[in-house]
Amino acid sequence: MIRGKQKLFTGLQPSGALHIGNYFGVLKPLVDMYEGFDSRVMVADYHALTTLKDADKLHANIMDIVRDYVAVGLDPKKALIFKQSDVPQHTELTWIYNCVVTTAFLELAHAYKDKRARGLESNAGLFDYPVLMAADILLYDTDIVPVGQDQKQHVEYAREIATKFNTTWGEAFKEPKEKILEGVAIVPGTDGKKMSKSYGNTIPLFGSKDEIAKAVMSIITDSSGESPSNVYNIHRLFKSERELAPVYKANKGNYKASKEALIQDAEEFIAPMRKKRESITDADVREILHDGGEKAREIAEEKMTDVRRRVGVSI
Amino acid sequence: MIRGKQKLFTGLQPSGALHIGNYFGVLKPLVDMYEGFDSRVMVADYHALTTLKDADKLHANIMDIVRDYVAVGLDPKKALIFKQSDVPQHTELTWIYNCVVTTAFLELAHAYKDKRARGLESNAGLFDYPVLMAADILLYDTDIVPVGQDQKQHVEYAREIATKFNTTWGEAFKEPKEKILEGVAIVPGTDGKKMSKSYGNTIPLFGSKDEIAKAVMSIITDSSGESPSNVYNIHRLFKSERELAPVYKANKGNYKASKEALIQDAEEFIAPMRKKRESITDADVREILHDGGEKAREIAEEKMTDVRRRVGVSI
Repeated sequence: MIRGKQKLFTGLQPSGALHIGNYFGVLKPLVDMYEGFDSRVMVADYHALTTLKDADKLHANIMDIVRDYVAVGLDPKKALIFKQSDVPQHTELTWIYNCVVTTAFLELAHAYKDKRARGLESNAGLFDYPVLMAADILLYDTDIVPVGQDQKQHVEYAREIATKFNTTWGEAFKEPKEKILEGVAIVPGTDGKKMSKSYGNTIPLFGSKDEIAKAVMSIITDSSGESPSNVYNIHRLFKSERELAPVYKANKGNYKASKEALIQDAEEFIAPMRKKRESITDADVREILHDGGEKAREIAEEKMTDVRRRVGVSI
Repeated sequence: MIRGKQKLFTGLQPSGALHIGNYFGVLKPLVDMYEGFDSRVMVADYHALTTLKDADKLHANIMDIVRDYVAVGLDPKKALIFKQSDVPQHTELTWIYNCVVTTAFLELAHAYKDKRARGLESNAGLFDYPVLMAADILLYDTDIVPVGQDQKQHVEYAREIATKFNTTWGEAFKEPKEKILEGVAIVPGTDGKKMSKSYGNTIPLFGSKDEIAKAVMSIITDSSGESPSNVYNIHRLFKSERELAPVYKANKGNYKASKEALIQDAEEFIAPMRKKRESITDADVREILHDGGEKAREIAEEKMTDVRRRVGVSI
C-alpha cells in the first residue's frame, strides 16, 4: 500500500465453491492487476445475508472464499483482505446514505428488479443492497472498481450516492470509476452457455482431477464436428491458440482425445492452486481477516469521523 | 441499574426547543417512572437525519436535548443516557434485520405513510425507520417502551421483527411491550387543539418568564365564558383542581386575571428546571454522552456478538 497508487476496491459474495468461470472472469483479472493498485478486497458477508439464511453455510463460505482469494494468488501482505461484517462503519454509512437516497431511485436498480423477477422475497436488504455497496466502495476513497459489464450499475449508483452526500453535506467522497473486465462474458460452460452455477454447467476451480474429468467429459459436443467446439473454447482458457492448434489438428473429429488433453491441461493448471489452497488452515484465514479487519476499520473510521462531523452528529 | 429490574427503553429525536406538551405528555411520565426500571434513554440522532439535513441545527439539537433530559429530572447516574450515533451496533443490526423484513411490511408503516402524505421526500431512511427503531429497542433486551398511543405501532414492529429474527436464526431477542402514556393526548395548545410545534400553539418549556407570559396571553378564550376554558385546561397541568377552584371562582369572567395567575404558576413550576438547565455546560453534556455511549456500546456489543454468531458471520 504505497502512497500515490490508485485505490482499487472489490468485493465478492461468499457464495460457495468457485468454478473456472469465476476464475477467468473475475479472479484472474484481479490477480493480474491488483499489485498495481492500493487494493482492498472485501468478503461481502452482509450482502450474502440478503439471500443466504443458513448460518453454517455462510460461515463455511466465508472461510472458503478467503482460501480461494489467497490460493489464486492474492497476497494478504500486498492487498487488504477483510470481511464486511468486521467493519461496522459500512452499515453506519449505509444508514446515512439512506437519508439522502430516494426509494424511487432504489426501485430502479437492475439487480433488485432481476431478483424480484426471479421470485426472491423482496426483503429490505435486497432493496437497500446498492446503498451498502456504495458505502463499501466510498468509505475507502476508491478510484476504480473492477466489475463485469452487468455490474456497471453498482458503480454508477455509488457515484450518484457520493454526489447526493457531497451536495447535501459537503465534499467528503471521491467518485469512483468502474473498470469493465472484458473477459467475464466469454467463459463458456459445459453446455456452451455462459458458465454459471445456476445453469449446472460448471467446471470446479478447485476440483480434484476426477471432478475436473467428470465435468470435462460432460461437455456437450456437436456431432457435425464443427469448430470451434465447446471443448476448444474451454481449452483455450488454459493454453494459447498456438499451443492448441497442433493438438486439435491431430484430434480432429475425436472429441474424446481432445477432452483428455483438456483434462490434462486443466489439471496441470489447477493443481498448484489446489495444493496452495489445501495448505491454508482455518487459523491462517482467521489471522488474515483479523489483521485485515483491523486495518480496514482504521481507514473506515477516519472517513466516518469526517462524515459524522459533516452531518452534525459529532459533539 | 440494579439486576432484576425490568428494562425500559425510550428514544427522543433531537428536534429543537421543547414545549410543555412534550413535558407533560412524555418527559414527566418518564421522569416519574424511570427509577423503577433499568432505564436507557437514547438521543435518536440517526433517526433525526431522515428529515433534518442542517448539520449545525442537528448538532445544536443534540446538545439541547441532553440538557432537556437532565433539566427535567433524569439523572445520568440513574439512567443510561446516550446517543444513537455513538453505538454503531444499531445500524449494523438494522442491516441484519433488513435481510428478514419485507419491503411490503415497511410500506404498511403508519409513520411512513403519514410522512409521505405530508409531502416529505420518500428517502430510504424514512422507509427503513421502523427497522432502526426495532434495533434501538431490541439491542438492549428491553421489556417496556413508554409511548404515546400514536406510536404503538413502532413497538408492534419491533416485536414482529424480533419474531422474524428468532424464527430465522434462533431466540436472540426478547419481545418488548409498549406502555401507553395516557397523558399524551390531553395537553391542549393555546388554541385548544393538541399542543404541537407544527400548529404554532405551544408554551415553551424552558422559556423566560416573558416568553411564557406572551404564550399564555395568546391563549384563545371564549367570550361566552364557558368553562372549562383553555386557560383552565392548561392551568390544571400546573395545579390541582382543588387548588384552582377558588382562583377560577374569584376570576369568573375575567380571563386576564386567570391568565396572570397561570403565568405566575407556570413560571414557578418552570423556573427551577430552567435554572437547572442553564447550569448544564457543553462539557457536562459531552461527559454524559461519552460515558453513556461507552456503556451502551458494551451492552450492544455483547448482544451483537451473539447475533453475528447466529447469522454465520463470526469466524
